[in-house]
Amino acid sequence: MFMETIYTPGVAHLSYVVGDGGQAAVVDPRRDTDIYLEAAYRQGAKITHIFETHRNEDYVTGAVDLAARTGAAIHHGSQLDFRYGHPANEGDDFQLGDVKLSILHTPGHTLESISVVFRDLAFSEDPLGVFTGDTLFIGDVGRTDFFPERAEEVAGMLYDSIFQKLLPLGDHVLLWPAHGAGSVCGSGMADRNFSTLGYERQYNPALRNGDRRAFIAHKLAEEHFYPPYFKKMEKYNLEGPPPLTELPRPKPLAPDDFARAMDSGMQVVDVRSPEAYAGAHIWGSFSLPLAMVPAFAGMFLEYDYPVGLVVEDYAQIDDAVRGLVRIGYDNIAAYLAGGLHAWETSGRRYGKIPAIHITDVEQRIDAGDPFTLLDVRSKEEFQSGHLRGAKNVYLGDLPRQIDRIADGHPVTTYCNSGQRAMIAASLLKRRGIDLVENCLGSIAACKSLGCEME
Amino acid sequence: MFMETIYTPGVAHLSYVVGDGGQAAVVDPRRDTDIYLEAAYRQGAKITHIFETHRNEDYVTGAVDLAARTGAAIHHGSQLDFRYGHPANEGDDFQLGDVKLSILHTPGHTLESISVVFRDLAFSEDPLGVFTGDTLFIGDVGRTDFFPERAEEVAGMLYDSIFQKLLPLGDHVLLWPAHGAGSVCGSGMADRNFSTLGYERQYNPALRNGDRRAFIAHKLAEEHFYPPYFKKMEKYNLEGPPPLTELPRPKPLAPDDFARAMDSGMQVVDVRSPEAYAGAHIWGSFSLPLAMVPAFAGMFLEYDYPVGLVVEDYAQIDDAVRGLVRIGYDNIAAYLAGGLHAWETSGRRYGKIPAIHITDVEQRIDAGDPFTLLDVRSKEEFQSGHLRGAKNVYLGDLPRQIDRIADGHPVTTYCNSGQRAMIAASLLKRRGIDLVENCLGSIAACKSLGCEME
Amino acid sequence: MFMETIYTPGVAHLSYVVGDGGQAAVVDPRRDTDIYLEAAYRQGAKITHIFETHRNEDYVTGAVDLAARTGAAIHHGSQLDFRYGHPANEGDDFQLGDVKLSILHTPGHTLESISVVFRDLAFSEDPLGVFTGDTLFIGDVGRTDFFPERAEEVAGMLYDSIFQKLLPLGDHVLLWPAHGAGSVCGSGMADRNFSTLGYERQYNPALRNGDRRAFIAHKLAEEHFYPPYFKKMEKYNLEGPPPLTELPRPKPLAPDDFARAMDSGMQVVDVRSPEAYAGAHIWGSFSLPLAMVPAFAGMFLEYDYPVGLVVEDYAQIDDAVRGLVRIGYDNIAAYLAGGLHAWETSGRRYGKIPAIHITDVEQRIDAGDPFTLLDVRSKEEFQSGHLRGAKNVYLGDLPRQIDRIADGHPVTTYCNSGQRAMIAASLLKRRGIDLVENCLGSIAACKSLGCEME
Amino acid sequence: MFMETIYTPGVAHLSYVVGDGGQAAVVDPRRDTDIYLEAAYRQGAKITHIFETHRNEDYVTGAVDLAARTGAAIHHGSQLDFRYGHPANEGDDFQLGDVKLSILHTPGHTLESISVVFRDLAFSEDPLGVFTGDTLFIGDVGRTDFFPERAEEVAGMLYDSIFQKLLPLGDHVLLWPAHGAGSVCGSGMADRNFSTLGYERQYNPALRNGDRRAFIAHKLAEEHFYPPYFKKMEKYNLEGPPPLTELPRPKPLAPDDFARAMDSGMQVVDVRSPEAYAGAHIWGSFSLPLAMVPAFAGMFLEYDYPVGLVVEDYAQIDDAVRGLVRIGYDNIAAYLAGGLHAWETSGRRYGKIPAIHITDVEQRIDAGDPFTLLDVRSKEEFQSGHLRGAKNVYLGDLPRQIDRIADGHPVTTYCNSGQRAMIAASLLKRRGIDLVENCLGSIAACKSLGCEME
Repeated sequence: MFMETIYTPGVAHLSYVVGDGGQAAVVDPRRDTDIYLEAAYRQGAKITHIFETHRNEDYVTGAVDLAARTGAAIHHGSQLDFRYGHPANEGDDFQLGDVKLSILHTPGHTLESISVVFRDLAFSEDPLGVFTGDTLFIGDVGRTDFFPERAEEVAGMLYDSIFQKLLPLGDHVLLWPAHGAGSVCGSGMADRNFSTLGYERQYNPALRNGDRRAFIAHKLAEEHFYPPYFKKMEKYNLEGPPPLTELPRPKPLAPDDFARAMDSGMQVVDVRSPEAYAGAHIWGSFSLPLAMVPAFAGMFLEYDYPVGLVVEDYAQIDDAVRGLVRIGYDNIAAYLAGGLHAWETSGRRYGKIPAIHITDVEQRIDAGDPFTLLDVRSKEEFQSGHLRGAKNVYLGDLPRQIDRIADGHPVTTYCNSGQRAMIAASLLKRRGIDLVENCLGSIAACKSLGCEME
Repeated sequence: MFMETIYTPGVAHLSYVVGDGGQAAVVDPRRDTDIYLEAAYRQGAKITHIFETHRNEDYVTGAVDLAARTGAAIHHGSQLDFRYGHPANEGDDFQLGDVKLSILHTPGHTLESISVVFRDLAFSEDPLGVFTGDTLFIGDVGRTDFFPERAEEVAGMLYDSIFQKLLPLGDHVLLWPAHGAGSVCGSGMADRNFSTLGYERQYNPALRNGDRRAFIAHKLAEEHFYPPYFKKMEKYNLEGPPPLTELPRPKPLAPDDFARAMDSGMQVVDVRSPEAYAGAHIWGSFSLPLAMVPAFAGMFLEYDYPVGLVVEDYAQIDDAVRGLVRIGYDNIAAYLAGGLHAWETSGRRYGKIPAIHITDVEQRIDAGDPFTLLDVRSKEEFQSGHLRGAKNVYLGDLPRQIDRIADGHPVTTYCNSGQRAMIAASLLKRRGIDLVENCLGSIAACKSLGCEME
Repeated sequence: MFMETIYTPGVAHLSYVVGDGGQAAVVDPRRDTDIYLEAAYRQGAKITHIFETHRNEDYVTGAVDLAARTGAAIHHGSQLDFRYGHPANEGDDFQLGDVKLSILHTPGHTLESISVVFRDLAFSEDPLGVFTGDTLFIGDVGRTDFFPERAEEVAGMLYDSIFQKLLPLGDHVLLWPAHGAGSVCGSGMADRNFSTLGYERQYNPALRNGDRRAFIAHKLAEEHFYPPYFKKMEKYNLEGPPPLTELPRPKPLAPDDFARAMDSGMQVVDVRSPEAYAGAHIWGSFSLPLAMVPAFAGMFLEYDYPVGLVVEDYAQIDDAVRGLVRIGYDNIAAYLAGGLHAWETSGRRYGKIPAIHITDVEQRIDAGDPFTLLDVRSKEEFQSGHLRGAKNVYLGDLPRQIDRIADGHPVTTYCNSGQRAMIAASLLKRRGIDLVENCLGSIAACKSLGCEME
Repeated sequence: MFMETIYTPGVAHLSYVVGDGGQAAVVDPRRDTDIYLEAAYRQGAKITHIFETHRNEDYVTGAVDLAARTGAAIHHGSQLDFRYGHPANEGDDFQLGDVKLSILHTPGHTLESISVVFRDLAFSEDPLGVFTGDTLFIGDVGRTDFFPERAEEVAGMLYDSIFQKLLPLGDHVLLWPAHGAGSVCGSGMADRNFSTLGYERQYNPALRNGDRRAFIAHKLAEEHFYPPYFKKMEKYNLEGPPPLTELPRPKPLAPDDFARAMDSGMQVVDVRSPEAYAGAHIWGSFSLPLAMVPAFAGMFLEYDYPVGLVVEDYAQIDDAVRGLVRIGYDNIAAYLAGGLHAWETSGRRYGKIPAIHITDVEQRIDAGDPFTLLDVRSKEEFQSGHLRGAKNVYLGDLPRQIDRIADGHPVTTYCNSGQRAMIAASLLKRRGIDLVENCLGSIAACKSLGCEME
């Protein structure tokens, strides 16, 4: 019997390979599927089953590719009209050696969400673990804002799924969700990957109260951002995404060729650190620090134009490519050969975004200088405390709000630490706003120093 | 917050690195400690605490080396007079960021055994997990045969530790023991590394009954083999083992030099597969398939003589060396350069141990041929079913019983699959018994074919 | 400027990636081309040119796949009607940054063979190195037996290519051939990969004499074996082989399923060591120690049936698969899950091939026992000294000669060390010859012991 | 027979492992010696000989450590009173299987310099290659400025060593020097690692003329910088450096602790890219991009104070540590946990160094603004073309000249590309010069744009 947890950073996605007796099942595979084949191979097992706990909206499923490469059958909830795979209904059982996997229908996050119960028949018919998808997380529950017109109903569904189907499995049951801390699918998740139903029942803030009405009220009060790329993911994951037989291999382009490609519409993603972007960058490029690519690329990048990369070193290319294909950007055409260094020595112009220390921001506020102070955190974060006079536009929403900002004043951006604020700064510069500074350190620095917030 | 489980095969040892806020603790480190330093380094954490759940008897502790390399403090139970580290008593707490680790005194397996309770203060003061050492395993409990004159007392202690201290922590608590399936420290363990106290309470065969008397009676009835190397491990782990600043690096020796070193007392361990050993091997060498080195080397090898290795390929050397130092064999002098191929082409003699199929063994039994049929499994395994006319000597005991076997008759060895039986065959050959055959397939083949057993 | 030598063991194949200024050329790519893409990627270069020094006959070209993945142009000699790529003629130049590559037509080994001269224009227009394909090796020259009816003519061509085109490039020129020691394309190669034209001119045994007639006479007197798979390679390399988008991924099969697949025609290749094969193996499998797969698989395996693998460990699968696809076996269906151990414990029968020491072979010869002593080395090796009474059938020829051997007598095989002899032994057993022994150590052991040879 | 070239970037150091018949020799080992042990191990060889072509001055020798770990004998020239190893004199031969290594005394760069001639006895007694240390490079020759009072004499020695001892070995002989392009030991080296004596004889600019007088005159006219750390290296390499049993493992320190350590004298090396340093850095830290650590750290860092690191990611720590110990900095105490991001969010102040484009520098020159334009390239580079009005202080000399710069004016630094200029800028800021800008792109950008130079 074996079980491996595959953690994919950026989307903070958890997928699982579990099996026994020469067979393996994969739960919620990501798009680049080598890692599952290798895990199964190492265990001498054949992947025979793939379970999708729901039609994911924040990454492209790897189920179709993995099925094509292994012959495995795909199973997902029956309340949605998938163009691939097979419906699985509550009560369906699948056995792999001593491992028994059983379906629970646990709607709420989506209507067709399922959970998969794990049993070790060598010991008992009682459950030992459960794969909960986006229904129940460690420290939080799934969002229920995808059906605005049925908001109350689906929040109630989620409550029932958790309280009537999952928690009754027993306090002793291990919890294996589809996301960990840092995901856009929940905001209060714990920064560890292990828990049990009993622990969550008592200490998960979303469950502690236990009352159905209070739960629904709480869910209805939540505000979630709906990123534009979710649409694409939903379509892909409903119909089956384009096949990905091998990872895109962007070509090295020298500065002149890279610039020419930009002129022809190539979107440039600079995955270097915010500090390096601050020091020098290509005009018109997006700042998207490597770890943030999967979470934010979908907010700005067009699916119809090729992507070019600016990287710090060779090893970053593979990470950037995987981060992009996981959310459906397959046309990754080039990377800047020689990096920014080559750009600089070619004599081409480069941009800068001066960092500004929180104390200097405060002085500027106090001095009453005419400038726009832009907080790009979520509304929730903003409301929990922000700098005096700050205007709040969530980073994901900035492309659609950007004209509101461009009033001729210099802009200073901030967020929690300065990373999202740098992405925002790069968007503002692209829009033609020249005087942009970014507060590296941002609210975190502010808190460390005990400075004043509203 | 992070937690990594380090699984060491061979001894089926589980150790853990856990931490938060830039600090890390290691539970039950093995002797080659690089892996802990790397884990902590990767997490940006400093190892500040080392916990030993008990004076281990089946491997050499890495606590002293790890403390020397990191400055961390070692903590272990206070009922034994360790020559290093600090006593930890029930009620002692240690905090690393949001992680709180608390000591429980859980004697039984040894008198000073402790368990370490894990709490995530960001969520609750209630426990979420517990490191149980050799007190409670997944599917089994620790052995209690180390104090024969106090057998009943210590079995009772173990019962109390489990039923009065561990299980009351709650059904929802995760279980993290010091050994997994395949260890010499318990025999009924599950072949997975995850469980909870609630699951064990209900389905661990050793706990199911729940009655103190029945538990004690069951423990008293168990028969465990006490391998000779345990003495060495106990001494090392009480006093602190010799420091290991870098892994021994055996020198390549050509066949002539290798043979000369054997003449001077070098013990040769052949870690190739049983089939390769069957096909050709150096006379006088021990068969010890790589994965079995840590579990069986201590049964036969002398600590006072150097060890030489015969390997299939270069990569096996590192594994063999680690397997040996983990049980205290630091004098690994040489490996046979060019492998057995070089030995053969040098013109030197080599031995063979013909394989014999289970069906042919049966025919030989039926024919009443005069030969010794030797079952080298444990008494427990032997009693659960063996071949007609077989004599049982447990492999670990064979060196001390070998003269009983040498009666001039040919010997056929078997075990469960033929691996331990090959080790036994190599011991018999070393003792001068020439006509030895080994039943590859052994009892497992017998069962597959439905052949007759007593 | 960069240059990497890619050594592929088994076929002892040398290919090269060389480039400058963001461009790279690959010389004689093998079929699994990832390694070239990675090398170029690492150097920030785009593969723009592929050179094939000749239509190789001992491995499948990777040129077509590599061109498809990179857009590079393929260049080869113009005297053969390739179905892909572009003809390159003497005098054609290609420049990549400061690297200049120029074509020489150097027929002899094949009619369209080319050599590619390397110049570093930053220093001089004079050559610094030359890629010679199978025209000139380190310590030997290419074979010229592919046009038996024009034997003298092509031997003369090779002489002229070497003496009139290559050596005149200058003593100081570095030599980069397509094969190193151990290839089937030459027999006297040095066991190092570095030399110069000046060194070869003086010390290459095939060139030392320098006389055209003597050279031709020497070439005509050579006897080379023409392995059956050369036909397939020639066809593939002329027409372009089937595309290989990803490496075949054999499925794990349990013993029962593996046996069933064998019944349906699956050919089984056992890549474990000769000693392991001697100890126990599946009846009907081929012994093909991993390192010998690319050199010998083509002698026996049918292209039209799937291949199954028996391996020692997981890591061997990748090597075996690459070894097989490099010579065109793409249908690698399965590997035996759990290895031979699983086979044995399943209760199935297994074969053995007893090893016999050279001294015992000698005694048997002296005793005049009726048995067949089979030397499977090349005629050349046989003639340089063999055991008394031995019959010589070259291993590659054995499948076609095997009926001559099967006369009811027991057979003892030998070669130089016992590895090829084990392959031969496995062929004999497949043919139904039951009493086969193999002399591990073989002639090498005989020489070490100073035993008698004819 | 085997030979591996070990390239160590930063110092552009080439060392070699060569051997046959189970023995290996290492030529000019670097200080972290694992790589040689692994190479030899992989080849089944024992390291028995270590050759030092001369007392190196630009890195710490690994000979003493390697000898201690292997038992190998160290050999070096006899004209210097080494405190370790054995003198080797012209005519001494060493045989390892078919490899024969012979000593030539080739003084000039240092008085005791030796070259080691390589022969493959399987083919000839004639040389095939030669290890030339710092006597002859690919495209250049060694510097001869270490004995200023005997300048002419040693330049003549070098001439004689090359023209009377090395070149006569033959045009066909392979050249294996101790350094490649980018070393501080020669300035005209080719950017490839392969050449022959014949090619160098004709195309090495330093040898082309061939006249002894002209050669000496040329050498006397050269100006080399003598970095301060050479003194330390010379002492270490004469007496034997402190042993290095394992690489230093810097501790992670949170910003507060890191700052405290700085207050106590810790020197901080920031190995991130110049762009990242430009964007934000710790006040008082040195900019030393990772690849430049071994070449420039010795210019500024004190040996008597601990070093702290600022890195982009975990993987850089190992590289930085190796880079530092190779030039004798063993006291690497800490790295900044969480990187600069953690520093920023802690609320601490950080510095910036604005980048300035070459076109803006030109405008500023034209405008006649009062500012100091500082060219930190070597005198040689400066003289080959520089910006109007620039002042030249070589980077290595800047610490000793810095007070000359600090005249209250803003400073703009440049070099060839902007990297060394960033190091210089960090030195100026440390000295208290606040207004410092760095021209990313520098002269290279100037050339690309065809801008004006003097």
